[in-house]
Amino acid sequence: MRLLLLSNSTTDQGYLVHAADWLRDFLGEEVQRVLFVPFAAVTFSFDDYATKVSEAFEPLGYAVDSIHQMPDTARAVREAQAIAVGGGNTFRLLSRLYRLGLLDLIRKRVRDGLPYMGWSAGANLACPTIRTTNDMPIIQPPSFDALDLIPFQINPHYTDAHPPGHKGETRADRLREFIELNPEMPVLGMPEGTALRVEDDHLDRLGAHALRLFQHGEDIREVADTDLSALLAAA
Amino acid sequence: MRLLLLSNSTTDQGYLVHAADWLRDFLGEEVQRVLFVPFAAVTFSFDDYATKVSEAFEPLGYAVDSIHQMPDTARAVREAQAIAVGGGNTFRLLSRLYRLGLLDLIRKRVRDGLPYMGWSAGANLACPTIRTTNDMPIIQPPSFDALDLIPFQINPHYTDAHPPGHKGETRADRLREFIELNPEMPVLGMPEGTALRVEDDHLDRLGAHALRLFQHGEDIREVADTDLSALLAAA
Repeated sequence: MRLLLLSNSTTDQGYLVHAADWLRDFLGEEVQRVLFVPFAAVTFSFDDYATKVSEAFEPLGYAVDSIHQMPDTARAVREAQAIAVGGGNTFRLLSRLYRLGLLDLIRKRVRDGLPYMGWSAGANLACPTIRTTNDMPIIQPPSFDALDLIPFQINPHYTDAHPPGHKGETRADRLREFIELNPEMPVLGMPEGTALRVEDDHLDRLGAHALRLFQHGEDIREVADTDLSALLAAA
Repeated sequence: MRLLLLSNSTTDQGYLVHAADWLRDFLGEEVQRVLFVPFAAVTFSFDDYATKVSEAFEPLGYAVDSIHQMPDTARAVREAQAIAVGGGNTFRLLSRLYRLGLLDLIRKRVRDGLPYMGWSAGANLACPTIRTTNDMPIIQPPSFDALDLIPFQINPHYTDAHPPGHKGETRADRLREFIELNPEMPVLGMPEGTALRVEDDHLDRLGAHALRLFQHGEDIREVADTDLSALLAAA
């Protein structure tokens, strides 16, 4: 299985610029076209989203086909050379994929070797469930169960920052609540600019920042190692 | 119908201290005992939560009975003089109430005049759905549908603050996404320290800060009026 999971798309460098080398290295020269899934978009159109992503991928040598423009979405997944799932609202993304009945097909193809990349909501979609999304539950999917491509949860846009004076929960508070109710499931907090790359039983951390590992009954742990393959095996 | 809905419980003054006068005014002298619902608690026990709330209510002259200590929860709701639903994780709160089968009973009693107060998750529970909660979806309730006591949504702990450099969505972004997918449903963003009081067809804003009204197709509006009764009628 081959996965590239990014915490986020946009840094001070621009849209997906920080990930350009990772992307090229991940997709290589065999892939010519990438099937893009824009369904996490809410306040901008799928067309605009596809254009934006196309403008980021084309200079790297990859053409983008957006699934929302395909007459037969299942066939598009079956014939894809690689799949990229964009960020936005995770509930919206998952609801749409359930409605189109595409989750099982995507899962099967990725488990059979189709390169999968996702950022933000698209990284959460690769997890067992979407229970560690930061997004507002603006629409109710039939289930929180997602692609289940990795045996742990990701929290994208992870941050220790907290507005001064704000009495709501910190991100760490929220993830502690998650592991309290889901003690068997570790969570990797991924600060912006970080990514994970899976090549079968190998898991690498990418990016300059350490990750945060939340596990039930343990203190939050900073993860600065590059090789995190143990996380694939342990869970 | 009688409701007191607080954005939050804790301010620099302490736990529910900012709300003491509102609380006393709302519950009055007829109420002696308040039925407390602690089910939003995740990383602390229901017992500890009940003790904390009891210590806030008793000096005001109200005894607290926590529903988790009741052998017959439905009977406790049927016989309550007032009900108070505490904050924590909204998904956890709603899941537990579905599991206990108490939502219909609470809704009916409150519609028949039982005083209802809630803070944070407990304020979201009074809304048509929990789709405007800030909480992480750490557990999947059978539905996002909630008590539906008011015809609009609340966003508790509303803030315009955003950690510098953070590329994730602002609160306003998230609520704009909500009204994009739910155009018929207004949302009131409630900064910390604010509250709403409903007395039948009368709705008052409490607290020093203006609220933010999100409506589809309109700019975000600051709401500084005291009398917001039009919101009960409009939706």
